[in-house]
Amino acid sequence: MHPVATVVLDLAIILVVAKLAGDLAARVGQPAVLGELIGGVLLGNLSLVGFHALEPMKSDPSIAMLAEIGVLVLLFEVGLESTVGQMLRVGVTSVAVAVLGVVAPFALGWGVAAWLLPEHSIYLHMFVGATLCATSVGITARVLKDLDESQSDEARIILGAAVIDDVLGLVILAVVTGVVAAADSGGTMSYASIGLICFKAFAFLFGSLALGVVLSPRLLAWASRLKAPGALLAYGLAFCFGLSWAAHAIGLAPIVGAFAAGLILENAHYKGFLDKGESALEESIQPISAFLVPVFFVLMGMHTDLRAFADPAVLGLAAALTIAAILGKQACSLGVRGGADRLAIGIGMIPRGEVGLIFAGIGLTLSVHGEKIVDAAIYSAIVIMVIVTTLVTPPALKWSLARRRAFRASPRKVS
Amino acid sequence: MHPVATVVLDLAIILVVAKLAGDLAARVGQPAVLGELIGGVLLGNLSLVGFHALEPMKSDPSIAMLAEIGVLVLLFEVGLESTVGQMLRVGVTSVAVAVLGVVAPFALGWGVAAWLLPEHSIYLHMFVGATLCATSVGITARVLKDLDESQSDEARIILGAAVIDDVLGLVILAVVTGVVAAADSGGTMSYASIGLICFKAFAFLFGSLALGVVLSPRLLAWASRLKAPGALLAYGLAFCFGLSWAAHAIGLAPIVGAFAAGLILENAHYKGFLDKGESALEESIQPISAFLVPVFFVLMGMHTDLRAFADPAVLGLAAALTIAAILGKQACSLGVRGGADRLAIGIGMIPRGEVGLIFAGIGLTLSVHGEKIVDAAIYSAIVIMVIVTTLVTPPALKWSLARRRAFRASPRKVS
Repeated sequence: MHPVATVVLDLAIILVVAKLAGDLAARVGQPAVLGELIGGVLLGNLSLVGFHALEPMKSDPSIAMLAEIGVLVLLFEVGLESTVGQMLRVGVTSVAVAVLGVVAPFALGWGVAAWLLPEHSIYLHMFVGATLCATSVGITARVLKDLDESQSDEARIILGAAVIDDVLGLVILAVVTGVVAAADSGGTMSYASIGLICFKAFAFLFGSLALGVVLSPRLLAWASRLKAPGALLAYGLAFCFGLSWAAHAIGLAPIVGAFAAGLILENAHYKGFLDKGESALEESIQPISAFLVPVFFVLMGMHTDLRAFADPAVLGLAAALTIAAILGKQACSLGVRGGADRLAIGIGMIPRGEVGLIFAGIGLTLSVHGEKIVDAAIYSAIVIMVIVTTLVTPPALKWSLARRRAFRASPRKVS
Repeated sequence: MHPVATVVLDLAIILVVAKLAGDLAARVGQPAVLGELIGGVLLGNLSLVGFHALEPMKSDPSIAMLAEIGVLVLLFEVGLESTVGQMLRVGVTSVAVAVLGVVAPFALGWGVAAWLLPEHSIYLHMFVGATLCATSVGITARVLKDLDESQSDEARIILGAAVIDDVLGLVILAVVTGVVAAADSGGTMSYASIGLICFKAFAFLFGSLALGVVLSPRLLAWASRLKAPGALLAYGLAFCFGLSWAAHAIGLAPIVGAFAAGLILENAHYKGFLDKGESALEESIQPISAFLVPVFFVLMGMHTDLRAFADPAVLGLAAALTIAAILGKQACSLGVRGGADRLAIGIGMIPRGEVGLIFAGIGLTLSVHGEKIVDAAIYSAIVIMVIVTTLVTPPALKWSLARRRAFRASPRKVS
């Protein structure tokens, strides 16, 4: 009769756990997001101590959907804090960082899989490589926001690069998936179709930014003459959601569209609304993000099965993949020019969050000649890699940014 | 791969239509909510002109869930604007208004059904009566908010009565459903179980209010010492969602819990948060309500099938039910004491929104000895009644409140 009752009870539990755990994290000097994640891990493993009532929450489609909307809102919010102009300034560095940060983990992951899993096909090796590619910008963005570093050069390079390497990662996924599908049907994938996948990914990002910069001031100037209250927030969200859908429609992750939407919208564009007394988008989006974003982080924590940590084979593979994932992203620092902190950028690119999990999930559904590409053990190892890289990033990033600040504040103290 | 893409595209369309239609309504001097409803009706009937792409949106479970969360947020927001003390002041009047407003439409609806549908069983007649009982406080609350009348005596009587008659309506639904189930299994329902259903409904509302008034200041004073940002909003929402679930758990509509949660929370309770610079709940809930509430109203409009208006039999029944629904609620005015405007209160109680639709939907699933209690034609008629009472209320309420204001401003003009 009323399934919404279950959903809202889950939301109530998630919100309380997120804030309690976030408070504990803040008390030990860690970003709130780490508390939310660990709170989620505890919540998700209560069945180990005999409490099973929360198990359905993990697979509730409504909670999953709210979490995904939360990620879109978070990326939109992060995008709002930057402008296209600022992003272009760090553009070349971001692209170099992104390309190095995709190629190195892809090659390392492929190598680790070929070394530890020689009995599996080349398609699996390739696929494992692909799951290591895409940085989950959500974690890093949230940590940077918690530390009030969203405006730093490092933040813009990382966020710019994370968006670009998301695009690159999805290109690789699309290509690998295409190769697997072609192998399964006995053929091979043509270079033309690989080229097409690559082309539309790049075309979307640059096309939407260019078009948005031209169109959004005009559309918003017109919309600001409308009389409905709260129109700016509604149109801003509609723009974010519309671009997210458009990104998906051409085969990219929706978060790419949400971030692009945030980049495009600037205070100057909706001056007409601000003059009417409406709050700036950055402000009115905050309560929505405070409501939905913790849902994503708690849910990600809940999906961690602590029992997988007890299987040595899974653990060995997970350890190798985690090292490949972390080392691979340190290649990013080779792409950094200028005064930005290389270590902080390499660390900021480490987390493989939602995109890594989505990739692993897709792997479970693929098969060549009836044999599954990714089996349950490999999936668990990938999930552990995603979790460890996610858990490791906030304290490491916090440490490296504090080191950089100490260095800038008193350079003589450092030899 | 990414069902969220469809959901966010739907959300983008809903938000844009809601604000455009709300703007048009505001231009002709009507409440924005009427525009949102009619925008939804147009959106939902585009298939009549050959455009079918939006049909799946009507039955999308994610959109329906977001709409239901939107109603909870709206009722919470409305509850926040009142306090338990204010509600108790109009309490006796609200109870009298509510009881009269439930008994009269129940009897009238039963009579109309027995007169126009003599070939159906007494169970159907009873059920049709039940669908006429519950006022949909959402529409009225929104209209009062749009007209800046949420603080008036009439608003408090209507909202208090609507909550009580929601409880009463659900008691009647629970009893009628129990009678139908007992008839289907060949027995009859005991007075003891009818008594139990009635008891727990009343116990919930008064119990949660009493308990909340005692506990919430202490809990919030403790919570305000936590360090996580945005904690007040998170705890407020968790409280709203938790009470919504609790209401559902004992068999009531979740909106009863959301409204009770709003009533209980008062600025004085979370002074500790405000001192720390957090926004008041009334403010930080606004963007969430601006995002989710239009989803409910547009979706309600979309569920109207304009073709049902072309069937004379359906239309005749719908007209009789609508008249019964409207006249039945005018009995409310007999319960009004003091200076509050009786006509405005009778009109404010007219809409049968989500609760009426939920009742009709439950009717479709019930049967006695294999014969369905409510068939498709009767369902259509109930839906039309719900829509007409909903569409009629905003302009009528606006008119009656303007009349009252004119009367108070210059009493000599009225004989």
